[in-house]
Amino acid sequence: MKTENIAGTTVLRPPVTVTPRKDLRNWLIGRPLSTADAPHQTIGKAIGLAVFASDALSSTAYATQEIMFILAVAGTGALGYTFPIAMAIVALMAIVSISYEQTIHAYPGGGGAYIVARDNLGELPAQAAGAALLTDYVLTVAVSISSGVAQIVSAFPTLADYKVEIAVSLVAFVMLINLRGVKESGAAFAIPTYFFVVAMFITVGVGLFRLANGSLGIVANPPEMMIEQLGVAVTPFLLLHAFSSGTAALTGIEAISNGITAFKEPRSKNAGITLIWMASILGTLFLGISLIAGKIHAVPSEHETVVSQIARTIYGGQGFAYLAVIAGTAVILIMAANTAFADFPRLGALQANDGFLPRQLTFRGSRLVYSRGIVVLAGLASLLIVLFQASVNRLIPLYAIGVFLSFTLSQSGMARRWWKSGHLKPGLEITEPGSILKFDKSWKFKMVVNGFGAVCTFIVMIVFAITKFQDGAWVIVFLIPSLIVIFIAIHRHYKNLANTLSLSNYQSYQRIQRHRVIVLLGGVHRGSLKALTYARSLSSDVTAVHVSIDPVESEKIRDKWSTFGEGVRLVILESPYRLLVEPVMEYIENISSTTQAHEMITVVVPQFITKQWWGNFLHNQTALLLRFGLLFKPRVVIVEVPYQV
Amino acid sequence: MKTENIAGTTVLRPPVTVTPRKDLRNWLIGRPLSTADAPHQTIGKAIGLAVFASDALSSTAYATQEIMFILAVAGTGALGYTFPIAMAIVALMAIVSISYEQTIHAYPGGGGAYIVARDNLGELPAQAAGAALLTDYVLTVAVSISSGVAQIVSAFPTLADYKVEIAVSLVAFVMLINLRGVKESGAAFAIPTYFFVVAMFITVGVGLFRLANGSLGIVANPPEMMIEQLGVAVTPFLLLHAFSSGTAALTGIEAISNGITAFKEPRSKNAGITLIWMASILGTLFLGISLIAGKIHAVPSEHETVVSQIARTIYGGQGFAYLAVIAGTAVILIMAANTAFADFPRLGALQANDGFLPRQLTFRGSRLVYSRGIVVLAGLASLLIVLFQASVNRLIPLYAIGVFLSFTLSQSGMARRWWKSGHLKPGLEITEPGSILKFDKSWKFKMVVNGFGAVCTFIVMIVFAITKFQDGAWVIVFLIPSLIVIFIAIHRHYKNLANTLSLSNYQSYQRIQRHRVIVLLGGVHRGSLKALTYARSLSSDVTAVHVSIDPVESEKIRDKWSTFGEGVRLVILESPYRLLVEPVMEYIENISSTTQAHEMITVVVPQFITKQWWGNFLHNQTALLLRFGLLFKPRVVIVEVPYQV
Repeated sequence: MKTENIAGTTVLRPPVTVTPRKDLRNWLIGRPLSTADAPHQTIGKAIGLAVFASDALSSTAYATQEIMFILAVAGTGALGYTFPIAMAIVALMAIVSISYEQTIHAYPGGGGAYIVARDNLGELPAQAAGAALLTDYVLTVAVSISSGVAQIVSAFPTLADYKVEIAVSLVAFVMLINLRGVKESGAAFAIPTYFFVVAMFITVGVGLFRLANGSLGIVANPPEMMIEQLGVAVTPFLLLHAFSSGTAALTGIEAISNGITAFKEPRSKNAGITLIWMASILGTLFLGISLIAGKIHAVPSEHETVVSQIARTIYGGQGFAYLAVIAGTAVILIMAANTAFADFPRLGALQANDGFLPRQLTFRGSRLVYSRGIVVLAGLASLLIVLFQASVNRLIPLYAIGVFLSFTLSQSGMARRWWKSGHLKPGLEITEPGSILKFDKSWKFKMVVNGFGAVCTFIVMIVFAITKFQDGAWVIVFLIPSLIVIFIAIHRHYKNLANTLSLSNYQSYQRIQRHRVIVLLGGVHRGSLKALTYARSLSSDVTAVHVSIDPVESEKIRDKWSTFGEGVRLVILESPYRLLVEPVMEYIENISSTTQAHEMITVVVPQFITKQWWGNFLHNQTALLLRFGLLFKPRVVIVEVPYQV
Repeated sequence: MKTENIAGTTVLRPPVTVTPRKDLRNWLIGRPLSTADAPHQTIGKAIGLAVFASDALSSTAYATQEIMFILAVAGTGALGYTFPIAMAIVALMAIVSISYEQTIHAYPGGGGAYIVARDNLGELPAQAAGAALLTDYVLTVAVSISSGVAQIVSAFPTLADYKVEIAVSLVAFVMLINLRGVKESGAAFAIPTYFFVVAMFITVGVGLFRLANGSLGIVANPPEMMIEQLGVAVTPFLLLHAFSSGTAALTGIEAISNGITAFKEPRSKNAGITLIWMASILGTLFLGISLIAGKIHAVPSEHETVVSQIARTIYGGQGFAYLAVIAGTAVILIMAANTAFADFPRLGALQANDGFLPRQLTFRGSRLVYSRGIVVLAGLASLLIVLFQASVNRLIPLYAIGVFLSFTLSQSGMARRWWKSGHLKPGLEITEPGSILKFDKSWKFKMVVNGFGAVCTFIVMIVFAITKFQDGAWVIVFLIPSLIVIFIAIHRHYKNLANTLSLSNYQSYQRIQRHRVIVLLGGVHRGSLKALTYARSLSSDVTAVHVSIDPVESEKIRDKWSTFGEGVRLVILESPYRLLVEPVMEYIENISSTTQAHEMITVVVPQFITKQWWGNFLHNQTALLLRFGLLFKPRVVIVEVPYQV
């Protein structure tokens, strides 16, 4: 321990080579990292794509089949609408991508929906964006992991009974990895992402080639569909419903705008190009998969994914190529969950720092990650997986509505920002943390682009909420406003606390004029006499109090006290209902109501502490119970005097 | 509150009309009872039979079918051995009953196996009896409730999927009743017990009558047996195995010997006669049921109980008479569980009072019952029911081995006692709590009776352990010794504690010569200044300590402290790993290692307390964490100074 003296204050610095304890936790998540260890590395476009694209790209694994699930209600004939709907979604994707590309340039310090809404729209929209995003990160984990497990189960149907267990274990696994701390710069991300991209491009390419030369058949032994084919007509509502399901393909497209600082300079330019690449790959794969799914008569099913049906039809069986596609898809889905594990704790810490979430979320754990946020996310996602039995099809109606709310808020915020920047004097710059607001001569065009994006995503959100309301979207429609209310209540709590604690107008008039001390006696023995010694060192006004349940016992205590009590007065509280804590509370209440303003009451409780941990279960934890009762009383303090046995 | 002064001590007595709080707990289990309310009523033989016989009599509901379950492995032909085995069990029952009748006379204060073993055999056998009995009470609840549910399911097969849920709800229901406190003297017990006895006697009577005149057929649509009929030979091992299963019929026969004090005077005589009645009824019904079960070709099954098959065959369908038998059987089985709820907490309190179980078990709750024991029993029994899916057939191998161990210990103890009494001088009496040991001229005969009983039950126990070892009895064979080890460890703990705390050779040399106080600062505000005021009232040696995670924050604190710190020295602990508790622990360890023998360190922790309960989740509970770390250090005391916001 190094000691230093700065302006009269002693500062103690631990030696640099602190050896951290070796325990289970360290074995699981690695040795603690010092604050000084925080890494700062930047990445190029190719790695950047791998790091940030897994969430977006992985949605190709389920978006097509979710469109088909809805259409199938109107009979297999209606599945022909899959491809046109996919085209509409890709058009929406293009609008959103172009809109976000502008955000990246405006917010080189990272422009998630929460920050953009907070800077440009105000507190309430920012909290709405926060609520929407946190909800959606939880759903990203649940949906991605469930879909990953569905791929695995497609290839190995015997595992079907253990879907939920496998999914929860995978969540725990990703949680552990994140508690260790993932270096986002790791090239480890690049391999599976590019493997997936290449495998899918080859699959779609081979599929289109075989389609062209007519050698591509239809799915052999298609899985059971398990959907009631009501034979209803194909209504506009049904098409919008299917469209809503498919918009899950857009989730994750905003990931790059959150992580701009990870890119090499010129940051904004690199991040923007990466975003365009990502959107192009995503759109192409999604269209390709949707086209082929229709041609080979794939069916939506809980037993086998559409990706699995496509792969085994194109490769003519479940050989090596098939398994490579399934493995690649499963891995990228798990990595998509990993993205949410990076974003949820970061956003939580941001909101906590603004005072809208518990402060504890800003605390970085031993590995420099926001460990509490990571654990909360894993817990909530596991709960969802158990509740929905790891069924992607049942989770999807809850998903994406939050994403579209955050898209809308982010783009509205940007539109507002361009309007503001257009009204600045040229040359004037307003510096904000992470961004600079200055006049931009093409502000009108940019405002229209972001504004149009906002309008589109807003409409989609409304369509989504209406068409999927009954399927489960109602949960989110009620949840997000409730979360906003909670966030605001938390904020008010912290604000009130800060006011109450504030030292402005503080006058140090506080003096304790009388200090009464009460020693609780369970019996008269070395432990209680130690407590008595301590009590007498605090004040000369000491009273010993015994709660009497058994009159014989009380008599013994009275006798012993006359020998060992050092003349301190003894009060016996009779307890006809055999309660321990309540009579003490009542007694203290009685005497404290007659106290003056500057009087303190200290309650001293002797507590045996045994060497073996289990020994403590053999004693009443009276002190702990009293603590919860008396904490709420002003001017009463509880002291446990431990007596080590 | 009445105040009184006895020999210099103030005694506070609450007014007689304390109005207890009205809350959920009171609504569920009734208003608290004062210690003075403890009832003392006694009962006659007829009510006594009803109160104490339900456990024993209820075993007729499953004992026969458990014999058949084992025999069925050798094919349905082997079921013919059911009746001879039942006769052997009834013979054993007669021996045990006669033996216990003697115990009742020797222990008019109540002579459970634990007391008898403790008084006559010593500590270890007593703890063995305690372990065996506690284990068996848990099993009594699990088996009786499961069998009760099996009866219900026999009549209403649609409920079969909810067996476990129904069983656990019934356990919770019986637990609530017992937390309220059951008046054992209640005539409420008499109605269902006598209803069951009468219904069963009528059923067996009608059955024998129809058997005699040849009108009794065989079971129509017998349930699926679900037993692999291996066609093995009927070996002596198989017969002993079946016999072991049937000995479950003896469980509960000791109940009266535990509860002698509940009887009217002459207590022992009344209790003894009741025991003989009970054994006679039990034996008759068991033989009748076993005979009829064979004649009508009843089959053992998880789907329908043998009692149900007998009743519907005798009454020719599932009419009113059938339902009455099923209902009576189900109710008496639930009442059998109730018996265990009376005995388990009482024995637990007895052992706890002797220091072999946690002292908390001696605490009587608001309704004057040993509520903790009741809750523990309900929890363990529910766990068993869930683990064994409420299957009587799977629980039975664990059952009865403990009963026979306690029978053996109790009767050996009695034999030993007679031997002792035979060697006393005539006229000399040794008074023990609950019994008087004096010369008895027929001591040799009585010793032989109890000794023979002990030998018989010992042999049965060994047979049971061997034949059922693989089926599950191994659990108990390992569990009981483990429990004994735990009991003895607990006893050693309490003995050591008493020695350490003992005031013999105590000299009041303890003086605190130096009292250092440390105030932990999270920030400088009204809360921490209140803590500072308090700290300064304790000692003049005060140090403020701040754990620094963020250097900027620490700088602010140092500034503010120079204004508000009242000149108290400030120490800043740098925490590169962002830990809060550990640096404080380390600092205290450093300074406490250099302290003199008579120095105390008090750590004062300011703690915000918010009005809304949820507010407290928004703050680090540093004090609570420190408490668990520092409790184990001698001469260190933690004080939380609450600051109500």
